[in-house]
This record gives sequence, structure tokens and C-alpha cells, in this order.
Amino acid sequence: MLFTKSIALYVTVFTSIVLLPMVLSEDGYDLWLRYRLMDTDSINRYSPYIRDIHISLSFTFVMRAAASELQRGLSGMMGSDIPQIQEPVSNGTIVIGTPTTSSVIRQLSLPLDSLGNEGYLIRQVSADDITFIVIAGNTEQGGLYGVFQFLKEVQMRKSLENVNISSTPKVKLRLLNHWDNLDGTVERGYAGNTLWDWWKLPDIVSPRYTDYSRAMASVGINGIVVNNVNAKPDILKAMWISKVAALSDVFRQYGIQTYLSVRFSTPYELKETKTADPLDSDVIAWWSAKVQKIYTTIPNFGGFLVKASSEGQPGPADYGRSHAEGANMLANAVRPYGGVVMWRAFVYSQDDPEDRAKQAYTEFKALDGQFAENVILQVKNGPIDFQPREPFHPLFGGMPNTPVSIEVQITKEYLGFATHLAYLGPMWEEVLTSDTFIKGSGSTVSRVIDGSLFQHSLTAIAGVSNVGNDRDWTGSHFNQANLYAYGRLAWDPYASSRSIAEDWLRLTFSTDTSFVSKAADIMMMSREAVANYMTPLGLHHLMATGHHYGPGPWVDNLSRPEWNPAYYHNADGNGIGFDRTQTGSNAISQYAPEVSAVFADVNVVDERYLLWFHHLSWDYTLKSGNSLWDSIVQAYDDGVASAKEMSDMWQTLLIYVDPERFQNVEADLRIQIREAKWWRDACIAYFQSVSNKPLPAGADPPEKTLAEYRAIQFIYAPGINTITIEVECVSSSVEMKPYVVLITLCLALNIIWRLK
Amino acid sequence: MLFTKSIALYVTVFTSIVLLPMVLSEDGYDLWLRYRLMDTDSINRYSPYIRDIHISLSFTFVMRAAASELQRGLSGMMGSDIPQIQEPVSNGTIVIGTPTTSSVIRQLSLPLDSLGNEGYLIRQVSADDITFIVIAGNTEQGGLYGVFQFLKEVQMRKSLENVNISSTPKVKLRLLNHWDNLDGTVERGYAGNTLWDWWKLPDIVSPRYTDYSRAMASVGINGIVVNNVNAKPDILKAMWISKVAALSDVFRQYGIQTYLSVRFSTPYELKETKTADPLDSDVIAWWSAKVQKIYTTIPNFGGFLVKASSEGQPGPADYGRSHAEGANMLANAVRPYGGVVMWRAFVYSQDDPEDRAKQAYTEFKALDGQFAENVILQVKNGPIDFQPREPFHPLFGGMPNTPVSIEVQITKEYLGFATHLAYLGPMWEEVLTSDTFIKGSGSTVSRVIDGSLFQHSLTAIAGVSNVGNDRDWTGSHFNQANLYAYGRLAWDPYASSRSIAEDWLRLTFSTDTSFVSKAADIMMMSREAVANYMTPLGLHHLMATGHHYGPGPWVDNLSRPEWNPAYYHNADGNGIGFDRTQTGSNAISQYAPEVSAVFADVNVVDERYLLWFHHLSWDYTLKSGNSLWDSIVQAYDDGVASAKEMSDMWQTLLIYVDPERFQNVEADLRIQIREAKWWRDACIAYFQSVSNKPLPAGADPPEKTLAEYRAIQFIYAPGINTITIEVECVSSSVEMKPYVVLITLCLALNIIWRLK
Repeated sequence: MLFTKSIALYVTVFTSIVLLPMVLSEDGYDLWLRYRLMDTDSINRYSPYIRDIHISLSFTFVMRAAASELQRGLSGMMGSDIPQIQEPVSNGTIVIGTPTTSSVIRQLSLPLDSLGNEGYLIRQVSADDITFIVIAGNTEQGGLYGVFQFLKEVQMRKSLENVNISSTPKVKLRLLNHWDNLDGTVERGYAGNTLWDWWKLPDIVSPRYTDYSRAMASVGINGIVVNNVNAKPDILKAMWISKVAALSDVFRQYGIQTYLSVRFSTPYELKETKTADPLDSDVIAWWSAKVQKIYTTIPNFGGFLVKASSEGQPGPADYGRSHAEGANMLANAVRPYGGVVMWRAFVYSQDDPEDRAKQAYTEFKALDGQFAENVILQVKNGPIDFQPREPFHPLFGGMPNTPVSIEVQITKEYLGFATHLAYLGPMWEEVLTSDTFIKGSGSTVSRVIDGSLFQHSLTAIAGVSNVGNDRDWTGSHFNQANLYAYGRLAWDPYASSRSIAEDWLRLTFSTDTSFVSKAADIMMMSREAVANYMTPLGLHHLMATGHHYGPGPWVDNLSRPEWNPAYYHNADGNGIGFDRTQTGSNAISQYAPEVSAVFADVNVVDERYLLWFHHLSWDYTLKSGNSLWDSIVQAYDDGVASAKEMSDMWQTLLIYVDPERFQNVEADLRIQIREAKWWRDACIAYFQSVSNKPLPAGADPPEKTLAEYRAIQFIYAPGINTITIEVECVSSSVEMKPYVVLITLCLALNIIWRLK
Repeated sequence: MLFTKSIALYVTVFTSIVLLPMVLSEDGYDLWLRYRLMDTDSINRYSPYIRDIHISLSFTFVMRAAASELQRGLSGMMGSDIPQIQEPVSNGTIVIGTPTTSSVIRQLSLPLDSLGNEGYLIRQVSADDITFIVIAGNTEQGGLYGVFQFLKEVQMRKSLENVNISSTPKVKLRLLNHWDNLDGTVERGYAGNTLWDWWKLPDIVSPRYTDYSRAMASVGINGIVVNNVNAKPDILKAMWISKVAALSDVFRQYGIQTYLSVRFSTPYELKETKTADPLDSDVIAWWSAKVQKIYTTIPNFGGFLVKASSEGQPGPADYGRSHAEGANMLANAVRPYGGVVMWRAFVYSQDDPEDRAKQAYTEFKALDGQFAENVILQVKNGPIDFQPREPFHPLFGGMPNTPVSIEVQITKEYLGFATHLAYLGPMWEEVLTSDTFIKGSGSTVSRVIDGSLFQHSLTAIAGVSNVGNDRDWTGSHFNQANLYAYGRLAWDPYASSRSIAEDWLRLTFSTDTSFVSKAADIMMMSREAVANYMTPLGLHHLMATGHHYGPGPWVDNLSRPEWNPAYYHNADGNGIGFDRTQTGSNAISQYAPEVSAVFADVNVVDERYLLWFHHLSWDYTLKSGNSLWDSIVQAYDDGVASAKEMSDMWQTLLIYVDPERFQNVEADLRIQIREAKWWRDACIAYFQSVSNKPLPAGADPPEKTLAEYRAIQFIYAPGINTITIEVECVSSSVEMKPYVVLITLCLALNIIWRLK
């Protein structure tokens, strides 16, 4: 329950609670849907607008869920039952619904046309001397979103006098990608195991699935991919589809479609076809029949997400077919039902000596225009892999004839897992507002994503979920902000990350203005702090191997060169950085000339991207007048100082936050300070061993030796699939994951060496 | 919080709640410590006895926790704050404490001598014209247990007039064994992952650890082994000890000692010694130093639990040393601090052709008298492995000169995992009341365990925990009963499982007498139902390989013979059963003559053990007059019928139970009926394929073919260390530290083969 247990869970129940004026502990389960009792002044202020809820018997499930949510939320905040009524409308009634289902709304002739399928209108109206608020959409889904927005207005204590709000999502498919495995683990998950209790599904349907759906719908999510992109064939077995169907029955109540990640070789691996060649007629028939079965049990099925011919996953390339041929075969299978295929562009080869940052563009650019109309290409925000800072991916703007969606990672694989406070809103805003210049100035990534730049109607945005079965859903209270901000940006990619942060703080902690202002300051500085203490000045992928927790800039011996941090920083006695200009990999050539020119010019490029594009001498002088070496040390020190500052700022917010959540955040920040220093010290110890430069005056030497930092190991770090270990034993040559390959290679080399 | 969030969590806060008369949904988090508001009549009835709580400033942490619990519980039930006071005592005051810390208790001269270290006294007393209740112990721990008992009395609506209750635990160490792995999984865990958030410890100390400690202390648990008996060397690294220390700081508040499972070869595997030989001086010194460090950070450390030279775990046998030599070395290390070593007797060899049921006795009997005084031998309840029914282990009574504890499995590895309703109280009662006849009639297992039979003062009982991070702790509501009953039986091994069930029902659901009576009927029939639909008439170990879920009587090809169900049932065209009489393995010779004679005589032995001890013709006639074959079919049918009956009975209890828990149990029972039938059908299909007998008249043929049952697979069943999956996939005979060795061998052989 998002609502505490002692408060009404069922429509007709209401419980009044008298609280002493003290902040009671919360465990975070309620997320931003807390609906706590307001103070008496606020109740009095709102009571003329909030008396009862006018519903219609012709509502179907989505609008019923909306009515129930509205009753629950308003009753909780007002401290008295706000009932659902059918007739009559009076002063203070809130009328909800659609023109089709609500006669009151039908008669009001509201300007709903521009709202589209999912937009809503919240407006105070007067008719027959009665003043009331109406929450309307063209569809029940629009009405549901309107209800959540209305609740948010009250939660944030906004005035309802003459309220007139309307909003329509700018992106059609707003998706969460769960990297949840069938064994219960979550790849890159730091908030416990999967939310889905696979073993007990479909019989046991946890109330938590409803609470999850409520929270996701409240920020406009309308699609959930329930399983990992590193998919198993089993997910398409009848037993597993029935489990997914039970989840989808819950999601559907909240206007959320269900999607599956599928393994390209599924029919072959299940031994039901002799190949997985996408042009083979048996394979085509198999997928068509499978899709038909899926839609029988999951009527609101949305389609497939596919990671193919990537990091060892099977794909069309295994049969000499292109990504387009592979994607289109699946797209044909789901087209009759309105389904889509989201085809991931996260592709790079272990054989290609080319700069990894260039490979996806090279591979897909040539296929532009060849994809079926219900295929969307899902592109990570940057050309490498979810680093604390990356320039935008050149495929944004690079595929004008193909719908392109953006994939961002809400879970913090490379930004400190659960405990580091890193608000990702500014990072996403940074990429969304980046100007590709593909059609001249103003060709922002947002305009690629929302379809307006190239007039695509199929638009999507995907976020890799940070949700698990931890009580607080996301592994820390501030990680909830990333989930919230993702939903808000998916609805409106042009929104400001600071204003989203402030809204989240009001809903989650307190509406007090000085609290909101100061806590938002912490959030807004947090990602820059992480970038500084991990990978300043355009450095990237310095993380330790496999789990990606903590520093590993010294790693240079992994079998695939592009898995080595050393591949990315290229540090030696002379300098550091990845030359991606014309003198180097020329990755900048994949961008529009205006962008390329900026990236190419070491004097013009934003120095936060400096070493992403340039290999420079340690003595190179930055705009500050300091040398590159001194600036790197300074940036690491800035990162550590920021972590300390965030902690100090949090301490001043004690009076606004309940003890349990306050202490939890406090402990997280303590970890962050310690680990920021660890990152700083380990990286400086390593880079100094390469640069042989003295530390700038005043900089502390690393606390330990480089050897000590190198010796730190986390055998049991979360987020790595334990299940993959077993693969190597069965070890088909097809199915490889990095770890498996690594372990296998490592053992193989060892044994070959011994045999010699 | 065991208490709902909206109710006071902090000492001085109280929240009054007005509820409509309806049963509100509960998620099970509160276990049996629900402290829900009583009806007005009850409040009025109790108010003369419950006004305030008299505490002392000299209380240390345990008694402070007790006072806080008492205030929380009574305030919740009474609907008004029951404050802690220091002076004065008046009518309705509840005085708590010990003679040392409470001057009131000191002056009362209560008969506390017989209570020992952990007992308590609850008594209404009158002094100076004031009548009040006193809850006292000789130690704070005793006081804490008294407080929980007092709360239970009120929760169960018992009269407090002239209350006079005292109790002392009959077993000294009452332990939960967590088979929790360092990677977060739980071996044989069916309630989610480990409760310990290892990654975030020691920085983040979840409030859930406190709630867990409260619940465990409330049933008298005073020791927790935090990690799996299949232990990793890492647990003894400083980083991990600091994590455990953070847990132990919480446990200590509730009088709970912390224990560790250790891997015998730890110093060698950590490369800190050259051997793990228990007689090697470096090894001895290493353990002494390690123990010293542990006690520095975990002052209430209890000692080690060791699985050695068993199922591939390293142990003294690797160095030609006996179990006693291995155990004594560790015992010497912990002795200076009062620590103990719990040495597991679950030992059987892959090379020994002897009946597995005999091996542990043979191995340990010879060592009786050789163990150090702070070693206790931990023996599973039966000679095989936690089956739905086993005769008692012959080591009970077989080791008169050695303290022997019993290990039972609270988690239902072989009894349907989380969802099957199987109340284990009667099973444990069955073994505890079994008469070993070692010192004549009345030499029950209980008297071995409580030390009275052989006058041992070191006594212990161990339960393999069924707790995980599922919201309801145990994976189902009725599994909570097993945790509760285990605690109660650990406190008093002579208690009645039915009366424990009734208490649990009153605390957990409702005090209504007809509810309690009917629900207890369900519980009391449940284990027999499971035994019937899985392994009737003394059959055992018919479960599928590895995960042990569902039927696998046909399995006969595993590398170790004693891992095959066929090893145990020995079914062929002539008959079925394991001959453990003199004509067979003669395992009965390990029991006292009186017992042996009963087991040996096919006409005398309880037929529920028939095929455990006897191999009989399919045509053998049972006491019922029916043939063995017909009786087996009948027993399976009885099991299925019982499952249905349990479900029907539960339906009649709708009005007593809140919707969320009612529906959850309902769904569990639906699963149980379906899977009881699956067990029945699959086993009958298989045994019929062997016996070639026609089904008795009226018996339904199995729904599917034997081949279909054999094809059922659960690749992602919970409770297997994901890592162990490979054991089967390679299933070599080595099975050692199992995984690594196997994987290595598998790969090595593969590569060597390729090189050829």
C-alpha cells in the first residue's frame, strides 16, 4: 500500500487520525503519493473546493481506479471522507471523467480537442449557479492523469481558485525498462531483488503491484518492459506468459501497457525451429503464432524490446541479416495487434578496432529508412554507456527516416549505486537540450525524441528502472527523485530539472519553501559532484570491472580492449585523453558540422568534455590558467568538497524531515563522502604513477598506496547476474555475457599456459 | 516497524485512531506483535490494571527496550498513552525490572531464585494499600521476556486479576540458523532474499533489524547465526565482521547473541596460513587471533557453527583429523570469552556404501566423550534430511557424554516452500516426544535436548530460519506460525503444538474462540496432509533434484547414489521400501533395543514409518486389510482430499480475517490443492509404471502421462544458491566447494579436449 495501513484502503472506509505536531517516521514506501493530513488552515482553505467526487457508473476500470485514488488522496489530506457520488453536482463537487462517460462533462462543452488521447484538463467551472471543479480527458487515461495532477496540486498546496490547467504528453510511449531476471535478481539493480514475485505468480498477485502501477501512472508512465534486455528464451514459455499476464492485469487498471524483452534466438533455443534466421519461414510463423498467443492472454500487450547482436546476445547478424531485417520480422508479427518493436542500438563489436563510440552510428546509419513503421530505434543517451557525463549520441539526428527513442539509465550503475546522492535530472536535461544542429540551430535532442524534428508520430522514451523490492522501492530516498524526474521528463522533455526537483521535494518531504530551496540546491549540485570525483573533465569509464563500483583506472588487461578503462583515458607519461578529432578516431565526424567544429576545437569545447574528445599533455593549460594535471587533481578535490557540502547542507534540514528518512539520507551522505575520497585518492594515486607529476600545492596525498587501492575487491557487489555464472558450465557458444566470457577466457588461458 | 507507521513510534508520542468497525487489511509485517486497539469493553476491563509503567533510571539497554515495548504495546491496545514513570507507584502501575535495578522489586522480596538467568515472574501484588502488577526477572533479559509474556496475556484478553505467572526456559541456547549467503541469496529460503542488507551495512542499519529482534525476543530466541552453514571464508574478513557487528549492536538490545558459521579452511583459503590442519600451530594461532578481534567488535559474540567434512565442505578429515579434533581447536579459541562451538553432525560420505541414514551415528558415536566442554553436537531431527516425516535421529541418546542439540528446519525445503500450508509444530512435537529408551522408558528426545537425561548444562536448539526480506517475513502468513512455534518449543520442548497454534492464531488473527478452534484444526491436519500427498507410509526423499520442489521419484541417475529418490524407495516390480532391519542395512541397530524391536516388526511399527524401515511386496496387506499398493494410492488421495478440506475450512473463516491476508491464504491453498494433485498424480504414474498394478476401484487415473510429469522443470526455483545450479548441470561426482571446482573441471576438461 502506498498509503499507511491504518488509513482507509477500501473505498468506503475512512479513518480519522489525530496527530501530535511532530514529524512521524516514514519508510519511503509511499513515494510521492503520501496524502498526509493537512494542517487545519489548509483544510479550511480547500474545503469549499473539495466536498465530493462525481463519478459515473459507465466508467471502466481506469476511471474507477482514478476515482478511488482521488477519494483516497483527498480523504487522507482533508481528514474526512470525500465520498464518490453520482448525483447531484453541488458547490465543491469534483467532476471527473470523459465526455463519453460523464454526462456533466459532455454538457460543459470543454475545449478537449487539443488534449489528444492522453491529455487532461482541470478547470473550475460554474453552471446553474453551482461552482465546481472538473477533471476531464478525452479518454479515461487522460482523466486518470488529470486526477493525479489534481492531487499533486493539493499536495503542493496550490490554489484551486479559478484553477485551469491542461497538459498533454509530448512523447507517445513512456516506458520503464526493468532489467529483471527470471531468477529474481536485477541486472544493475541496487534496490533489492525484482518486484515481481515470479515464483508465486500468477496465483499470488501482490498488492504492491497495484501500488507500483499507481506511482508509475502518477508520473505518466504508460508502458513497462518487465524483463531484462539480456533475455532468456523461457520468458516466452506459456508458464511465464501467464505470470506476465497476471502483472499486466494490474498494470492495465492504470493505463499501462506490458512489454517483453525477447531473445532473438528464442524459437531455436526452445528447439521449436531449426534456426532463428529472421527470413526463415518457420521462424516467421513461430513468432506470429507466439504473438497471437501473447495477445490472447495480455490484450494490452505493447510489443518487444530487443537487444540483438550485441554483447554476445544472438541476433540477425548470426545469419548474415541486418538489424533491419531482424527488427522487421518481429515488427510484422506484432503489427496486426498494434504492437511495436523497440530495437536497441547499443551495439559494438569485439572484433572492430574502431573507437567504440563510433560503432553504433556506423552500423545503424546505413540502415536508415529500412525499418518497418512500427520499429523504433532505442539509443542510449551517449555513445558509450551511461557514464556520469557523455556528449549526446550522434544517432540523435543521424537517423532522420527512423523513429528514434532515447534510453536513459535511472538506476545508477556508474553513479554510485544506491547510496550516492546523484540527482540525474540535470544530466538528462543536458542531453535533451543538446542541439544536434542537424536541421540547423534548435534541432535539439528533445525535438528528435518528441518526433517534431523529423515528423515521426511513433515516439518513445525508455528509462532503465531503478526499482526493486526494497521497502523504499529505489534503494534510497533520493533515488525516488530520479524515478519521478524520469516520468516527468518522459511526459515533457522540455521541463526544467530544477522545477521537477522542487515538486518532488514538496510531495516527498515538505512544502516549506526554505526546505525546498535548500534541498533542491543539494540535488542540483549532486551529479556534478559525482562527475568530478569519479570522471572529471571528460574522462569516462574508469570504473572497476564487472560491477562498475569504485575506481579502476588502472585496468588494462581485459580481453576486450574497449572494456578497459585504459582504453578510454589513454594516460601515459605525456598526457591523457581520447583523441576523437580528425587526428584521432574522428568520432566528431558523426555529428553535424556545427557541433563537430565545437568538439574539435580544444579552445572552444566545454572543458567538462575536454578529455572525451582530446588527448592532451599533462602540462596543457586550461582556461583557468592551471595545467591539465593540476586541474584534474583540483576537479577531484572539488568533487570531494561537494560531497561534504551536500552533507553539511542536509544537516541544516533536520527539522523538516522525519527521523527515519533523515538518518537514512545522513548515512548515505556519510558513505558518499568516504567513497568520494576513495575515488579521488585512488585515481590520483594511479594517474600520478603515470604522469609522475607532483601534486599541486595544498593537495593532500592519497591516503593509501596505489597497490592498496588496486587490491580492493567486491566479490559480492549487487547488480551482477549471479545466474550468468552457470552459463559457462552449460556454455553454448552463443550465450555470452561479459563475466562469463571473462571467466572462461581467464580459465582457458590459465590452463593453456599450464599445458605448455 | 512492527507497528503501523501512523501510530506512535517514539516514546512520548501517541496517536488515537478512530476505526469504523471493519477488519482492515494487514500485510503481515507486524507478525504476532500487532497491538491493535481493543474494543471499548476490553479497554474498560483492563484499565484498572494498566495505568502507567514504573521504570528505573538504572535500566540498561535490554530493560529500556522492554519498557519501550511495553509502552508501545499497551498504548496501542488501550488507545491512550500508557506512560513510563519513575515515581510513585499507584493502583494500576506496572512495575518492571530486576531486584538490582528496581528498588520497588527489591523491596517486594519476590520468589525469583528459581527463575534462573532468563526466567520471569508476573504477579499482582499489594503493598501499602496499593495494588499493582510487577514483571520481574533476575536479569534484564528475564524482565524483557516477562514483558513480552505480559503483552501476550493482554493481546489474548486473559484476565489480570491476581495474575501469577512464571516461566523459565528449559534450553539454554535458543538459536535461529540463517542460511543467508553473502551475495544476498538464502539457501533454502522462500521468503525473498536475506534480511541483512550486506552491501549497505554497517553504515545503513535498517529499522527492520530492530523489528526482527523484537519479534525473536518475544518468543525467547537468544541467539542468531547470521550466515549460511555453507560458509565463505570472506565472512571472517574485517569488512564483513564490521557488517555483522552492526547487526549485533541491534540484536544485543534484545538479549540476542550473534554467532557465525565458519568455513573450516578459512585461514588457508585467505592465504594466511599454509594449511587448515587443526593441529597446526599457525592455524591454532590464527583462529585465536581472529576470535580475539571478533570479540573486540562483537562483545556479545556467541561462537561458531560449523559444517565440516560434509557435503564437500572442508574439514578436519582433509588432514586426517577427527571431528573432535577439529571442533576442539575452534572451541579452545572461543573458550576464553565464554563462546561455544556448534558442530554439525550432518555428515555422510560419497564413498561410503553404507545406508546414509546410518553414517552420522557411526562417525560420531566413536567420538563420544572426546569433545571439549564448550562444544555441542548439532543433530538434525531425523537421520536423513528434514523430510515431511522421519523417525528421530539415533544420535539422540547415542552420545551420552556429549551435549547434543537438535536442528530443525523452519523453512519448508521439503514441505512445499512458501505456499503450502504446513504447520510444523506437530512434526517437532513428534520427534521431541519420541522415546529413545536409552535410559529406559521416558528417555525422550526432549530430555536429551534439555540436558536432563544426561545432566548436561550446555543445552541448545537450532532452527533453520524461514525469514527473508519479504514483507511478511516468512513468505506466507501461516509460515509465521512455524517461526513462532519454533521459538515456543525452544523455550519449552514439552509444550503442546496445538496450544501453541491456538496462541499464535489469537495473536495473529483473532481471539474469537470459534475462529481459533477451526483454524487450529486446519493447522493441525496440515503437516499430515503434506506427508500424505508427498511421501506417505514412510516413503522419503522423493523430491525433484536440487531445488527439491515437486515430485521426482523417478530420479535414479545422479552421480551420488544417496541423492537419488530411487535409492530411498527401492521400488521395482516386486515391491517398495528401504529395508533397514537386520535383513537390510540394519539401521535399526543404532537405536535402543526397545525402539529397535518396534521398528523391526512390520506388524508393530507405526505404519506411517512402514517403508522407512521395510521393503515390502506391493501385495503386502496393511492393518486396514488393503494391499500396500492400494494403500499408497489411498494415502495420496487422502493427502489431496485434506488439502481441499483445509481450503474449504478456510473459506468459512472469511469474517474473522482482513481481506488482504484472507485472500493471500486463499490463493496459497489454491496452489496447494493443485500441487497436491500434481504430487499424487506424478507419484502414482511413476509407481504404477513400476508396480504394474491397476488402480484401486474409484481412484482417478493421473491427469497426465508419466513423461509429462518427468518433463516438468523449474529452472528458476528459489532457494538454490544460483551457483548450485551448475552442480546439476555438470553433476560430476566431486560436488565440492562444489561450484568452483566443478566449473573449473568442466572448463578444464573441455579445453584439454579441444587442445587434443
